[in-house]
Parts: sequence; C-alpha cells; structure tokens
Amino acid sequence: MDLLSIKDPSFLKKMDISELEILSKEIRDFLIEKLSITGGHIGPNLGVVELTIALHKEFNSPQDKIIWDVGHQSYVHKILTGRACEFDTLRKHKGLCGFPKRAESEHDVWETGHSSTSLSAAMGMAIARDLKKEKNFILPVIGDGALTGGMALEALNHIGSEKKDMIVILNDNEMSIAPNVGALHNVLGRLRTAGKYNWAKDELEQLLKKIPAVGGKLAATAERIKDTVKYLLVSGMFFEELGFTYLGPVDGHDYEALIEQLRYAKKTSGPVLLHVITKKGKGYHPAESDTIGTWHGTGPYKIETGAFVKPATAAPSWSSLVSETVRRMAREDERIVAVTPAMPVGSKLESFAKEFPDRMFDVGIAEQHAVTVSAGLAAQDMKPFLAIYSTFLQRAYDQMLHDVCRQNLNVFIGIDRSGLVGADGETHQGVFDIAFLRHMPNLVLMMPKDENEGQHMVYTSLTYNDGPIAMRFARGNGLGVPMDEELKSIPIGTWEVLREGTDACILTFGTTIGMALKAADILVKQGYSIKVVNARFIKPLDEDMLSEIFRSKMPVLTIEEAVLQGGFGSAILEFAAERGFSSAVIDRMGIPDQFIEHGEVDKLLEEIHFTVDDAVKKLKSITMKKQKRA
Amino acid sequence: MDLLSIKDPSFLKKMDISELEILSKEIRDFLIEKLSITGGHIGPNLGVVELTIALHKEFNSPQDKIIWDVGHQSYVHKILTGRACEFDTLRKHKGLCGFPKRAESEHDVWETGHSSTSLSAAMGMAIARDLKKEKNFILPVIGDGALTGGMALEALNHIGSEKKDMIVILNDNEMSIAPNVGALHNVLGRLRTAGKYNWAKDELEQLLKKIPAVGGKLAATAERIKDTVKYLLVSGMFFEELGFTYLGPVDGHDYEALIEQLRYAKKTSGPVLLHVITKKGKGYHPAESDTIGTWHGTGPYKIETGAFVKPATAAPSWSSLVSETVRRMAREDERIVAVTPAMPVGSKLESFAKEFPDRMFDVGIAEQHAVTVSAGLAAQDMKPFLAIYSTFLQRAYDQMLHDVCRQNLNVFIGIDRSGLVGADGETHQGVFDIAFLRHMPNLVLMMPKDENEGQHMVYTSLTYNDGPIAMRFARGNGLGVPMDEELKSIPIGTWEVLREGTDACILTFGTTIGMALKAADILVKQGYSIKVVNARFIKPLDEDMLSEIFRSKMPVLTIEEAVLQGGFGSAILEFAAERGFSSAVIDRMGIPDQFIEHGEVDKLLEEIHFTVDDAVKKLKSITMKKQKRA
Repeated sequence: MDLLSIKDPSFLKKMDISELEILSKEIRDFLIEKLSITGGHIGPNLGVVELTIALHKEFNSPQDKIIWDVGHQSYVHKILTGRACEFDTLRKHKGLCGFPKRAESEHDVWETGHSSTSLSAAMGMAIARDLKKEKNFILPVIGDGALTGGMALEALNHIGSEKKDMIVILNDNEMSIAPNVGALHNVLGRLRTAGKYNWAKDELEQLLKKIPAVGGKLAATAERIKDTVKYLLVSGMFFEELGFTYLGPVDGHDYEALIEQLRYAKKTSGPVLLHVITKKGKGYHPAESDTIGTWHGTGPYKIETGAFVKPATAAPSWSSLVSETVRRMAREDERIVAVTPAMPVGSKLESFAKEFPDRMFDVGIAEQHAVTVSAGLAAQDMKPFLAIYSTFLQRAYDQMLHDVCRQNLNVFIGIDRSGLVGADGETHQGVFDIAFLRHMPNLVLMMPKDENEGQHMVYTSLTYNDGPIAMRFARGNGLGVPMDEELKSIPIGTWEVLREGTDACILTFGTTIGMALKAADILVKQGYSIKVVNARFIKPLDEDMLSEIFRSKMPVLTIEEAVLQGGFGSAILEFAAERGFSSAVIDRMGIPDQFIEHGEVDKLLEEIHFTVDDAVKKLKSITMKKQKRA
Repeated sequence: MDLLSIKDPSFLKKMDISELEILSKEIRDFLIEKLSITGGHIGPNLGVVELTIALHKEFNSPQDKIIWDVGHQSYVHKILTGRACEFDTLRKHKGLCGFPKRAESEHDVWETGHSSTSLSAAMGMAIARDLKKEKNFILPVIGDGALTGGMALEALNHIGSEKKDMIVILNDNEMSIAPNVGALHNVLGRLRTAGKYNWAKDELEQLLKKIPAVGGKLAATAERIKDTVKYLLVSGMFFEELGFTYLGPVDGHDYEALIEQLRYAKKTSGPVLLHVITKKGKGYHPAESDTIGTWHGTGPYKIETGAFVKPATAAPSWSSLVSETVRRMAREDERIVAVTPAMPVGSKLESFAKEFPDRMFDVGIAEQHAVTVSAGLAAQDMKPFLAIYSTFLQRAYDQMLHDVCRQNLNVFIGIDRSGLVGADGETHQGVFDIAFLRHMPNLVLMMPKDENEGQHMVYTSLTYNDGPIAMRFARGNGLGVPMDEELKSIPIGTWEVLREGTDACILTFGTTIGMALKAADILVKQGYSIKVVNARFIKPLDEDMLSEIFRSKMPVLTIEEAVLQGGFGSAILEFAAERGFSSAVIDRMGIPDQFIEHGEVDKLLEEIHFTVDDAVKKLKSITMKKQKRA
C-alpha cells in the first residue's frame, strides 16, 4: 500500500496476517530507504515493525495510550499515525522529530528521549484514568536495557503494589544501545531459554498431578506450597514477585503469537508484563548482524553494502581523544579504571576495554549508580574515569552533589556531547551542565579549546588529587591540530590569552573559541582591538586575569554554548559584583531560556542569534557603551 | 561498662552473648537518655543495637568496610568507635554529626544522608579491593525502605552480575521513615512469613528425595527442574534471581542467630544478602509502639512518658499549612491528587490521606518516580501536588527538567524544607533548589513571605494552567499571621513593595524578609531610606518593578537563604546586564560556595555572615558606592 496515504491506524483492524506481513515488508523497505539518506535510529525501528503494527491493530490509539520508552523506536508508530510523508525531514530543523512529540500528533501521548521514564508516566496515566472512571488500555513499551534504569525499577515497585490495569510491553532485544549487562539481563536470558509460558504451564500441570503422592508431608506447609506451585507454573518469577502477571516470552516478529498474547493480556486484570523477543535491525542484513550497536543510530549509508557515508575527516572524535588518552595513562597508573552507563561504543571505550578488561565497568543504563560507584572507587584511592554524556549526567545530579562533590572525591568526569547535539533534539542537547554543576562546591569544571589541550586536561584530571574534576567536550570531531607527544598538567584555574586587544575582551572556551576568533578578526579589520581569552576553567575562574581585565575597564563579552541562566557568563557577573567592579560592562551570549529542538546545529544557532555576526554586533555595542561612559 | 571509655570496637571480640546483652541494655539506656535532651534519630538506632554490635564483633572495622545507608542509624556505631563522649553535642554546631562523617573517625568509611547510595559505594569499594588484591569484607547496611530507591536497584543489578564478594545487610523493620510501601515491600513480607532459610532447606530436601519417582517425565527438562529445585530450596528468589545468595530472615535482636548467619555469610563467596528483621525503637516502649514514624527522628522528650518537649507555638508548620490548603482545594476540584516519596508524615499529608484515600499516593523512597508519575497524571489533566523536600528533589533533577518542564505539564511542586534545616546538616540543607531549578524553561518558582501569602500561592498553583509551578517553603512554623478566609490568585511574576525608600533597595523573599525589614529599620533610624521588596517570584522576575528600581539608580541588595552561584541574586545581575543597566550597583547575600554543616541555624548563618548586621553593613556600603558615583 501507499504508506504516504495513511492517516491513522484504523485501517489495520481489517487486515489479515498475510496483509500485515506485506505491510511490514513495505514499512521496512521505506525505513531502510529513507534512513539511508537522513540517518536515524534504524536498528531499533526495524526491530519493532510487527510489534508496533500489532499494537495499533489490537488497541485504539490515542484512547489507548502507547508510551514509547526512550522513543527512538517510534518511527513505525509515526508512519502508522499519518507521518510517513514527513520522513524526508527526519531529525532536521523544523522537520519530523526522532522521538515522540505531542505537538506532532495526538497519538504521541508522552514525550521521551531519556530512558526509563515510560513506566512512571504510565502509572500516572493509569491513576488518572481510574480516578476519572475512564476505560482504556495503557501500554508502555520498554526495552530490556531501559528496564535497568533506577526510575523504571522504582515504577515497577509502585505499579506492582497498586495493581493498576496496565500492559507493560517488554521489548527484549538483548541490546539497548550496546549489548545489555547486569543481573536483570541474566534474568531475562533465563526466561528466554525457558521457553513459552504455555509450554511450561502444560508440562508442569502434568507434573503437579503426580505430587499428591507426597501430599501428607506437604499439608503442613500449604501456603508455602501454593507459592511453590506458582514458581513451577510461571517462569517470570522476578516480575510475578513484583506483582505483575508475566506473559511470554513471545516472538515479536510472529503476528499470530503476538496478537494472541496481546488479546490474552487485554483480558488480564492488574498489571501485566508481556515479554516480547525482537531482533534489532530485523530485515536488513547489515543492521541485523550488528552485535555491538553500530546500527543503533547512524548517519546516511549505502543500502546495498551497508557502508556508512561519512564526510572524510582527519581529526579524531572527541570521545576517542579522551578515551585514548585515558588508556595511555592507564598503562602507567594501575589505579585508573573506566566506568560507563551503557555507552562503551559512543564513548569510544572499546580499546580501553580490550586492553584493560578488568578495569572497565559498563554498568548499564544506570547513571546514578555509575556516578556513585565511581565515588566508591575513589574513596578507596582508585582513579575512576566516568565517561558520560552531558544530557545523561542530568540523571545523576544528586549523586554528583551528595556523593562526589560533598565528599570531595577524586573522580574524573568526562562530560561528552556538551553543547548542542543537533539531530537528537531537545531531550539530548548538552546545554544545562554548566548551570547545574557550577554551584557544586569542590568541583573543577573545564573545557578544552582543541584536542591537544584536551589531552593535557585528561592528564591534569587523572593526576589531580584535590577532589572531583570534570571536562566538558563536544559531540563530533576535534580540529585536527598537532598533538604534543608529552602530556602535561595545566594549572587549575588558569586561562590563556589567545589574542591581545584593548577595546573589548571575549571570554569563551571549547568549541566557541573559533567563533570568537572569527568575530575578533572581522572587528580588527574594522579598526577595533579585541582581546580573546581561552577561559578553559569554568570553575574556578582565573581571578587574577579577570581582575586585570576589569581593572583595564575593557567591556567583556562571554560566549558559551550552554544555558545563560546561572551559566559561565553569570559567574563573570557574580565575580564583577563581588569584587566591586560594578561599573564593568558585561554582555553574555548563550542559550536562552527555552528548550532547543532538533535540527542542524548551525541552523539552531542562527535561530537563537548565536553566530559570528551576532558576536560582532554585541562587541560593537559594548565597545560603544564603554566609550560613551568614558 | 563505661561507654565513655570505649576507644574502638576490639573489646567486643572477647565478649560472650550474655555480656553482649548487658552491653545492649547499657547502650539503649545511654541513647534514650542522651537523645531525650538533644533529640535525634532514636527509633532507627534502638533498632540496630544488636546488629551493630554483632557486625563489630564479627568483622574488623575499618579494614572491613561497614557502610550505613542513609546513616541516621549510625549512633551505636559511633559509640562503639569511641565517640560516646561526644553525644551531648549531637547534631549541634561543631558537635557530633548525626550521620557518618569521614573526618570524625576512620571507621566512617562513607558519608551518607540521602538514601540508597550504600550499594553503589560498596560496589565501588569491592572493585577497588579486588583490583588492589586486598582482602576485606564490605558490608553495606541498607533498610527495606532505602532498597526501593532507584539507585539501590541499579546497584543490585550491577552487583548481582559482577559477582563481587560483598555482604549486604538488609535491615528490614517494615518502616523507613513512614511505613514502607511497594511491591518489594510485599516480597519482603512474604519472606518474613516464610520462615527461616534452614527450615525451608531441610524440609524441602526431604521432599526432593521423593521426586525421583517422577524422574522419567522430568529428564527431558532437567535444566528447568534445576531452577525449580532452587525455587523450592530458597525463599529469597527475588534476590537469588538477581544473583545474590539470600540468607535469612534472621531475628536482628537475637545474638546467637545473628552471629551464626554472619559467620555463614563470611564463608559464602559472591554477593550475599542477609535479611535481618529488626524492630524500630526496640527497648523503649513509646518508640517501639510507634506505627507511623513519629519516633523516627525527634526533638527532646520526657523519658518516663515519651512526651515531646516542644516550644509552644501558635503558628502552624509550613508543611501543614500547605497540605491543609491543598486538602481544602481538593474538596472543590476532583482533579487534585497528592504524591509523596515516603514523607506522608513529614509533609503533613495524613489528613489529606484520610479524607481522600484514593487521591493520595505514597510511592516510597523513589523521588524520580514521584516526579514523573506526577507528570503522567498532569498529562491526563489531573492536578498533582507533589510534596517533596528541597534536598530530595535533587534526586529528580532530570525528571523535573526532561519530563515536567520540557513537556510543560501542570504539576504543582511543594518544595518543603527549603533553606538551612540545621541539625540534619550538609546532606539535608535545602539551599541548592533555586540554582538547579532557575535554568529550567517553563517553570514558575516562588516563595511566600508568610503563611497567608503561602495559602494564596497554593491556590495560585492549583489554578494555574500554563505549566509547572513550584513553591519553596521553610522547615518549621509560620509566623502566626492572620489568615484571609477566601483564597485568591497572585498574578504570576508580580512582586510586592513592603516598604518604600530611596537610598537602597532590598530584594528578598520567604524567611529572609524578616531580616530585611529589621535591617531597614536599623538604617532608617540612622537616617537612611530603604526600600524593601517581597520578590516572591524567583522566576519569572517582576521585570517592570525591577526596571523601575534600576532606572531610579537605587543600589540593590539581594538576600536569599540559598547558594549564591546561579541563584536569585544572579538572576538580578543577569537582568541588569541584559537590559543594559550595566551601571547598577548590586550586592548579593546568600550561601557561599561550600557545604554547610549541621548545627543551630542561627549559628550557621552567623558563621557565613548572613545576619541582620551583615545586611546593614552591605546596605551602607552599596549606598556609599552609589553616592560616590553620583
């Protein structure tokens, strides 16, 4: 059928299984083709084609609430709810969002991006439904990886005890972004091999019939035996213990089985967990045979070969620069260990893991634990390197504050994907970290101007013994600068003058240094004299240099690819106010007080007036102000 | 024995059980007496007397690491490690901390305060031990309440899969602060009634001997049956499924049983979970018979009667003012529901729960889930009131940002215990909330000057339909002001002039308004004219009033009982810089960049120069600056 003509999923009701199978093929071909050009989360979506179709066939969205955990697997849902025609704009500026988006469709009842939120949302909706005496089905779809996130477990605990009607679809593909880890993963593994629920039920009912022979002995412990029977009957004891009816496992690519189980789940009261086994990348060989997560989310690729279409670049990625420097240092210092919450591939820790398998800890999607396990390591004199994305560090705010900073422990936090990340959009922009870390006592926070300074900052961090130290770095590649052979330490709280000048001073760090230098160039050509400072330590500030700048009466422009409220620019305002430089002229460029949607980073920056031209304008304006006052 | 003479726990090694029992009695008497004067966490500590003694007898602290989750149950540990003589200063300024404190003793290997961190810390320490090839026991002691915190579950998942040697002591008293809730609580309930491990083991081994009669049938499913046998043998399947060896349950007040199980645990490799049943308040009748949590933490009391010694106050507590106003409004609006993460008593929600049992949700120690379940409720047009302490909201930073603010959902967050809390100390001071909330787009954040304004703010919040709205309020009681009968809405973003003046302007809100008015009084007597503004909206600011103030060239002093970095004062600096009031004189009073320890709030404030006198000095100084410039 013509996927572009789909308005809503009602057409599915009349389709038989053979028609559904044809539709699955059409959707897979559509996704493989479209994503080969736009890029996107191909693996997760190919894995849930049948599951999504079956859900929309058996239930009535949006009255029934389908909640996609994480949400990168919602493309099939988007096609079935009338958005196929927008796939050319997927993850582009003003285009189709890669995650559920309430503004896009009434079928997107809950927005996600970060993992493990769906069960809490579902519980809230179930309570609301029951209080309002409405009737509908609530269907969170959560991966086995997301299930290990603490808040998902908190929600399981609450749902299981309140006994609300809800059908949790556990989409078990043995991977989240990387292969999953942890004890829960092992539980699921046992369930997968234990075979079908019905099989167990029949076989064991036969067995139970023979047990009365020893009944005399058992009579005294009837209650215990009732439990035992349950153990024998049901393979999903872990979930049953938590108050769920466990159904499955069922093959997530077998319509007949899926629909049968969904119908059974519909008739079951209380919380149900339906264990669905799917294959990530199903139906596209390169994605299906991926074992480490390369095909989780990709850029453009050639359909025939599965080769990625990447712009040639000489420079290494920031993630790889950092991880490789940590690996180099780990050869000299046995205390260095690496911790990642489920991002060994994204954080480029594969080589570290290979060289130091005993010193590498992928703790699964569990950011809170990742931070505090690092604190525990540091409390015993190890040197943990915690590799974590800026946006996911948000999950461990309290652990950073209460466990790491308060105890002043030597944890090195590598904050990856800081700044705008682009296509993943508002749930993933790494723009809050400065504002939420800057007020944590004891923390050193820095950002390097290039990968050479970056490697020295890694060295600085892993040789620093006075408490926690964090380095932000951007998504993507470095600048391709020459690299020093020997690593050296950068004195804490020291900035670097990149260019001298007298009319105005730009304070910035990291990726925006290029922009600052360009703006200065333009102004110099117009006869201005602009000082540019690499303010590489966001905390502590270089107070000596800053005082000198303020004493010189130079107006100051701060530039940061991060939120303005409470950010680096505010630190400069605070310093000026505290030290009595109250006549200082300070202007700030940064992310305004709004969430920044998905799209190409340059377009996003343009939209929020964060370009070289904007910097030039601001510099001219503050320079004039200063002249006026003088 | 003389408890004051104890230097370290080594003396326990030679004691027999009857001597230990005498010691238990002495420690209980000591605690009951000391805490009757100082107040403190009496219930939790009376419950772990035998457990703490047994741990220190059987293990060698500090080589063996005892990690107290939450940490308010560490008093007995403090007595046994040489700190009995300091109990007169418990929780007082510069006195003994109510939580483990590394600076106090080498036996305090990990600092706590917030719940559910011990397992992650223990895992970090276990990894460090094994990498360093050291031999020691790692013993996190965690309550059944703390176990439901997401990060504890994340840690269980990691520990269970890595199979590190560790003995988790599950201190199960069926209560954390309030009675526990949730499915895990039900799991533990079943375990408690299932009886002793050994009992089950013996009985079921007998049963298994009779099973070969049906062996033919079973041979084909040998693996499945192996699991079944395990189900039959072990009652703690939930923990066994996660990779732990489950031991217990054991009576935590029976030395013989406790020591036997600890010795067994010592000999067991891999992670062990020893389920210990204790009674909160054990040995002191008023505390032991408490069923709702009144005796969890108390002020001074009369030993004979258990009557609390409370200063007489006419004013209601802030918590009660807020919850009672919510209750009043809930009678008119069926959409209003209350959510609390395990704090129904502290948040004074008992009456609400009694009147609206179906609309009250205690989700257990699960702050992340509490926030997102509220978001889920709001997504379905309910009006959730989330009652949460400032310090615990830190645990749900990302849920506030990613789920509530990003989706702009109508959640009313009542932020209790904002500002310094005093005796609980640095883990509990509610001083970070402004800095970590102010940069969240869409959020309204406010703080009332008195309980009358407070009730109107509750009304404002529950009738507001444009997104999330949060109200901070202090620990303790209101001012006893007259209360309006009718509730009314306060226009969002409007401040209130409390006193006109022309020389300088104080901007402040909440509890510090009293201080501002006193400082103004003093200065007025000295011939100054001081304006005082109730800046009740921290976000959004009253931009009109603020512009007017800056246009008048009045110097401004901001006062906030919260961290200065990124706080309210910074918002004022940001506004002045953005709107071109760059010659404005602004000074800020607040909490400096350090953790504030425990102690009486007035002494703490004095120490950080946050008094009426300090405000007077600052006002004089900025007034002079302004005059100089003019």
